Amino acid sequence: MTVGYMREASTANAMTFIRLLFRWNGSVWKSVWWELLMWIQLYCWISMFYRFFLVKTPYGRNFEEIVQHCQKTSSDLSPILTFTIGFYVSYIAGRWWSVFMSIPWPDSTVLSISAFLRDRGRQYKNEDRRLRGAIVRYMLVSFVLVFRSVSEKIIKRFPTLEHFHTAHLLSQDELDIIEKAPPNRQFWLPIEWSLTLLKKTYNRRQIDEHHYSVVVNHLLSYRENLHRILSYDWVNVPLVYVQVVNLCTMLYFILQAVARQPVAVVTPNLVNNSVIPFYAIMEFIVFFGWLKVAQVMLNPFGMDDDDFEIDALIERNLNVSYGYVDDLFDHPPPLQDLVVKK
Amino acid sequence: MTVGYMREASTANAMTFIRLLFRWNGSVWKSVWWELLMWIQLYCWISMFYRFFLVKTPYGRNFEEIVQHCQKTSSDLSPILTFTIGFYVSYIAGRWWSVFMSIPWPDSTVLSISAFLRDRGRQYKNEDRRLRGAIVRYMLVSFVLVFRSVSEKIIKRFPTLEHFHTAHLLSQDELDIIEKAPPNRQFWLPIEWSLTLLKKTYNRRQIDEHHYSVVVNHLLSYRENLHRILSYDWVNVPLVYVQVVNLCTMLYFILQAVARQPVAVVTPNLVNNSVIPFYAIMEFIVFFGWLKVAQVMLNPFGMDDDDFEIDALIERNLNVSYGYVDDLFDHPPPLQDLVVKK
Amino acid sequence: MTVGYMREASTANAMTFIRLLFRWNGSVWKSVWWELLMWIQLYCWISMFYRFFLVKTPYGRNFEEIVQHCQKTSSDLSPILTFTIGFYVSYIAGRWWSVFMSIPWPDSTVLSISAFLRDRGRQYKNEDRRLRGAIVRYMLVSFVLVFRSVSEKIIKRFPTLEHFHTAHLLSQDELDIIEKAPPNRQFWLPIEWSLTLLKKTYNRRQIDEHHYSVVVNHLLSYRENLHRILSYDWVNVPLVYVQVVNLCTMLYFILQAVARQPVAVVTPNLVNNSVIPFYAIMEFIVFFGWLKVAQVMLNPFGMDDDDFEIDALIERNLNVSYGYVDDLFDHPPPLQDLVVKK
Amino acid sequence: MTVGYMREASTANAMTFIRLLFRWNGSVWKSVWWELLMWIQLYCWISMFYRFFLVKTPYGRNFEEIVQHCQKTSSDLSPILTFTIGFYVSYIAGRWWSVFMSIPWPDSTVLSISAFLRDRGRQYKNEDRRLRGAIVRYMLVSFVLVFRSVSEKIIKRFPTLEHFHTAHLLSQDELDIIEKAPPNRQFWLPIEWSLTLLKKTYNRRQIDEHHYSVVVNHLLSYRENLHRILSYDWVNVPLVYVQVVNLCTMLYFILQAVARQPVAVVTPNLVNNSVIPFYAIMEFIVFFGWLKVAQVMLNPFGMDDDDFEIDALIERNLNVSYGYVDDLFDHPPPLQDLVVKK
Amino acid sequence: MTVGYMREASTANAMTFIRLLFRWNGSVWKSVWWELLMWIQLYCWISMFYRFFLVKTPYGRNFEEIVQHCQKTSSDLSPILTFTIGFYVSYIAGRWWSVFMSIPWPDSTVLSISAFLRDRGRQYKNEDRRLRGAIVRYMLVSFVLVFRSVSEKIIKRFPTLEHFHTAHLLSQDELDIIEKAPPNRQFWLPIEWSLTLLKKTYNRRQIDEHHYSVVVNHLLSYRENLHRILSYDWVNVPLVYVQVVNLCTMLYFILQAVARQPVAVVTPNLVNNSVIPFYAIMEFIVFFGWLKVAQVMLNPFGMDDDDFEIDALIERNLNVSYGYVDDLFDHPPPLQDLVVKK
Repeated sequence: MTVGYMREASTANAMTFIRLLFRWNGSVWKSVWWELLMWIQLYCWISMFYRFFLVKTPYGRNFEEIVQHCQKTSSDLSPILTFTIGFYVSYIAGRWWSVFMSIPWPDSTVLSISAFLRDRGRQYKNEDRRLRGAIVRYMLVSFVLVFRSVSEKIIKRFPTLEHFHTAHLLSQDELDIIEKAPPNRQFWLPIEWSLTLLKKTYNRRQIDEHHYSVVVNHLLSYRENLHRILSYDWVNVPLVYVQVVNLCTMLYFILQAVARQPVAVVTPNLVNNSVIPFYAIMEFIVFFGWLKVAQVMLNPFGMDDDDFEIDALIERNLNVSYGYVDDLFDHPPPLQDLVVKK
Repeated sequence: MTVGYMREASTANAMTFIRLLFRWNGSVWKSVWWELLMWIQLYCWISMFYRFFLVKTPYGRNFEEIVQHCQKTSSDLSPILTFTIGFYVSYIAGRWWSVFMSIPWPDSTVLSISAFLRDRGRQYKNEDRRLRGAIVRYMLVSFVLVFRSVSEKIIKRFPTLEHFHTAHLLSQDELDIIEKAPPNRQFWLPIEWSLTLLKKTYNRRQIDEHHYSVVVNHLLSYRENLHRILSYDWVNVPLVYVQVVNLCTMLYFILQAVARQPVAVVTPNLVNNSVIPFYAIMEFIVFFGWLKVAQVMLNPFGMDDDDFEIDALIERNLNVSYGYVDDLFDHPPPLQDLVVKK
Repeated sequence: MTVGYMREASTANAMTFIRLLFRWNGSVWKSVWWELLMWIQLYCWISMFYRFFLVKTPYGRNFEEIVQHCQKTSSDLSPILTFTIGFYVSYIAGRWWSVFMSIPWPDSTVLSISAFLRDRGRQYKNEDRRLRGAIVRYMLVSFVLVFRSVSEKIIKRFPTLEHFHTAHLLSQDELDIIEKAPPNRQFWLPIEWSLTLLKKTYNRRQIDEHHYSVVVNHLLSYRENLHRILSYDWVNVPLVYVQVVNLCTMLYFILQAVARQPVAVVTPNLVNNSVIPFYAIMEFIVFFGWLKVAQVMLNPFGMDDDDFEIDALIERNLNVSYGYVDDLFDHPPPLQDLVVKK
Repeated sequence: MTVGYMREASTANAMTFIRLLFRWNGSVWKSVWWELLMWIQLYCWISMFYRFFLVKTPYGRNFEEIVQHCQKTSSDLSPILTFTIGFYVSYIAGRWWSVFMSIPWPDSTVLSISAFLRDRGRQYKNEDRRLRGAIVRYMLVSFVLVFRSVSEKIIKRFPTLEHFHTAHLLSQDELDIIEKAPPNRQFWLPIEWSLTLLKKTYNRRQIDEHHYSVVVNHLLSYRENLHRILSYDWVNVPLVYVQVVNLCTMLYFILQAVARQPVAVVTPNLVNNSVIPFYAIMEFIVFFGWLKVAQVMLNPFGMDDDDFEIDALIERNLNVSYGYVDDLFDHPPPLQDLVVKK
Repeated sequence: MTVGYMREASTANAMTFIRLLFRWNGSVWKSVWWELLMWIQLYCWISMFYRFFLVKTPYGRNFEEIVQHCQKTSSDLSPILTFTIGFYVSYIAGRWWSVFMSIPWPDSTVLSISAFLRDRGRQYKNEDRRLRGAIVRYMLVSFVLVFRSVSEKIIKRFPTLEHFHTAHLLSQDELDIIEKAPPNRQFWLPIEWSLTLLKKTYNRRQIDEHHYSVVVNHLLSYRENLHRILSYDWVNVPLVYVQVVNLCTMLYFILQAVARQPVAVVTPNLVNNSVIPFYAIMEFIVFFGWLKVAQVMLNPFGMDDDDFEIDALIERNLNVSYGYVDDLFDHPPPLQDLVVKK
């Protein structure tokens, strides 16, 4: 479920953004609480081990040196980490938006079919309606077939091709043909059928030469967008990149878990003895929160709070598209002149 | 209201930019004064609490340690904050401009209708004019319907669909149809009507085959742009990102409010005893000002000084579009040869 | 006047770039000399005030502390400033180039008119020529009208609409119509006339169906580019951003003017006593020069050395466009076969 | 082989990304293990040389000074390295994706041929099928010819033009013509043939005027994409850039191999005496891993784990394209009305 | 000459990139050796001046203070320099690739002419061939005319318009017309002629209505790309930007030449006394190498190793384009069915 908060951000005053901090869905708190808990546990175990077993032993001395070393090291690593995450997030965010922009909407294609396809009068009314309905349906079937191969949610809703039949998306005949086709072509078979149906209408001059090519181009660019979705799924961000950034963040906080230990070397005082390292926790939330931005955006068809709601999109496309081809279209309201001369 | 200052920035000399600093509308001063006031209050309260209750008590000692710790910590956090805001602002600024570029202008569509639609002579003059007027009006109704769902200002101006009627944007018949339609399709119903009207003109050969497809494509890309506005509103910048950056900035300045306290550890002198921490205030203005850039750009349809003036845009589109379809178009000035041979 | 130096940068050896440093027009020296002078004055005044009034007084002690504080502070601010300017310049530079790319060139439109418009034989020769001339002239009038509203230079050249008449751009009739039109439509009236003229040629079958739509599309995208120029002028970079960056730079160098004072705390020696702070001056040139890049690019239609030469562009477009519609076009050189078989 | 891991990244929780760290193919571990081994060897040799020959000699003293100097130097170099790699990786990553987006897919072209080319009835059925098959085959031959010149893998599969014949991609006649053509034109000869075949169908009115131009445009943009692939191969990232970044990384870790030596100057303790420098190894993995991202992306047609699988792509295109032109296309399933009224 | 190294970068292992470091053409070594030599000389002169004249004089004391001051200063400047170059290089690199992508290739235009222009049978064969040849030649003449005004190399090859005649690019008649034309239009005259020739073929119905507009559009977008090349040459990167970055780098290394002097203040030892400052040399190579990336990319039509080979491109375009219009086109190989059913 995409998390909307635009209404609340309509003015840029402080209260707005303070209020935004208290959201839970899609929030940084929801993203990092588990990791934070793990890290605090790690921190406490190290702390306790030191207090109960090492303090004032020669090993304690060694531990204190390690702590000091980690402090120096983690302060060296901090700017490196900042940039690595910074560049990574801006790369992933760019890709994420391109993916979203690649999701095709059937509207333009369906509207252009409505605009260019001629009625053949009363006696063919039902057949024409069925034909338009089939083209729209085929477009949506391709849509679902493609997203079934990239999105966890959709494959859960349509685990087998049979489910297309029960969802009234495919007839038994259609299902059989698709099941026999090679997997590479399955995605595009319904698009091919749409083209064939359109070609038929062209052959019986139900659509004009130029308009036919416009509609075909709409359909083909619809297909190309679906293809692009597959491409984004096929060629990922190189795994090395993902690993390096995640590894770097984890190492940094493992170092921090040691470096932030209040050890005897430093003069004992309130701040240093405080069991809970406030600053390290803040840093943890900021860095892991930032990293989560990238993790959420990496696979936008997954099941995170901020992932695209493909499920709702399919619903919407079905309803709206069928609406376009429905009869309402042919009965616009009577022409009235509301233009007020100024 | 968008804040214009281009005229004043036409030459890049120092005075220009010093003068720009004294603007109030849309300025950094107007953006941060409230936050700055809050922060100074926080600073003063901490300061007074320390001076009246803690100084020279054992707790004072602890407080001084905390101050020192905060100083070190906040100087560590400063570069991290710089980058986080830097990357964030450049991301939001890119998105902001894309949103602006997605706002469709009806001009091209309306002009192409004027260019391609044939007059049917005297006796149909009024009907033709009414038809062109209706197409234009429908385009604007879709525009308003879409922006009503993304912009606070527009929903205030058109709280219910009834207001479209009183604003002479919809006839009662049209209003009834729209109100009965499912919410997803409401936006596009007027566009559908425009298409139907156009189709009628094509059926009676008032427009040629190729030209008809050009006009339809203009209308469809107008619709796609409106659709994109809805998409930008539907899929926001992930909330985590917004929270991380705002949180990071707030934490930094809470730390600063403590770190900048003049405590007894440091040798007392004029600078350190100064009650008002000049530098921290500067830093506050710079960082919060920078962050405000992003907050203002995050929802460009809100009510900030720099948000897009959709309200004025609707006014402008109404006037200009009706002008295009008006009779002026058909009476160009007499042809004269002004070309001076050189 | 745009500053060209490409010829000198054709090879990337050191001497090339050393020589480039000694250019004056559009150079960093010309940009910052005035600011630098101001800053040196400020520096000297502070220096003298300290030497003549404060030295060895208790206030001198305080001043020295302030200097030390400023040193620490300004070294903290330096990386922040670097990034703020870095991100800002790269944002402005992107925008600047988009603006340049939006400036429409009439060439394609005019050439397509020439390619698609048929001659009607001898007896209409002059009328046809006048018609082509008028279309081209109208395109340029819209161009000038738009740039008159965004560029200081052009409004100086055409302060009133009357000047269009004296510059042989508009006849008296045309002028009257434009003056009576609402300001929003004035820009586009000439484009409308061009469209009307074209429509006339289509109605008398001087241009074919498909070609007519191509020419109209060229004209409309010419108009859209002009529209985009207005948009860039209407929606500026948020003022907050501009203010924050300029403010940050100014504050930094005010701090530096204090921080670089040779005060008694430091052991007196040649370097520290040198009256002119060489390094601070270098830093000043680099940072202010970098900031100037953004200031120059912010309003590319202003009057800086590097701003686009819209004035020359209008001249050029007039000459070239009239050339295209002139008779030369119809008399290509005789066909000869120069292809050498290889 | 492209490394897919999208399914595993569908939710952004910690375990997902920890699990991703244990992948081997395309992983940072696989990328850097060899370099890391080399570096550890270098480190050990220096270490042993110091312990066995230099310790407590005057040269040992000198070595210790060098170590200290390297420590200071390498901590200066670390942020520079971070940025150099950061900017470099984001540049290469942008280029890499553009290359991928330039790979043309024959689908749209083939589908548009199917949509626009008319059947000439029964008696020409085989000839028509052969013609469509030839056009598709020619498109793929151009594809393979182009990728043979940019990809190591493809040249291994098709070392000579003869191999096109054995792979049923070219007939002997076609092969002869291609072999005699100048190398520059070889790539495009098959595309030319496709165009000629299409022109023939247009001449015998098997395709309509407008549709013919649509198909030709599809073919030409297919060719342009292939051309772009050649351009990306022809004009590389400037070698200087690649060298600077690689050089900088190598120098840094040679410095580190010295700087991390536990020498006598520092007080001997557990951390400093540890033979294996943990932190330096982490840093090595992070920096080299990051650099590897760029190295892998630099030539996406090479033989790395993450390079594009052009081989499989050719297979896929062959199968799918032939499928499109096959008879299946002409037999869509019977029209059924599955639209459920809601 | 563009420097190719893609073949060597096909796998991302260490040896590949080590081997790449030993390339000379287009390498960092070739780019910076001269500057490095100069800098080492400067360094040595300062060093010797200090050793022979200043050591142990009071001036020596001053010099040592200057050295210390430079050390502090240059370590402050180092991160600033890193970013300035980083942002600058990424800006220039973006621009460089856009310039490359703007170079028009005649292929699509020529192929579309071949596809759409009808033969008029045997008796006109030669005339038709001559006509196609002339259109192609004119396109190339415009290409050369444009690049003659932006590239040093091309102006050397065609110093006067006469050279077009000797290179069989222009006939004497054509030459005379071009020489008499105003300089602004010279570039586009050949394009105009191509359009006129095409118009002739349209007038005698050798090409169909729709196809004519497609070819004209191809020609116009070819012209627009050439125009863009001129634009990139006309509006450069603001000189201030170039100067600031170069100045900053030079100042930094002048400071370094002083700061790296081994002076008596520091305790004399092997590292500090070493005459050659290894680290500073490394830093020099890295920074200047990085800067060279931008300098090479700044004017891609110059004479650097990595500049675009416009010369070879003209050759290639001539050959390939004439090939397309040659008779080969009309004789495709016989149709054969190689499709293997799978």
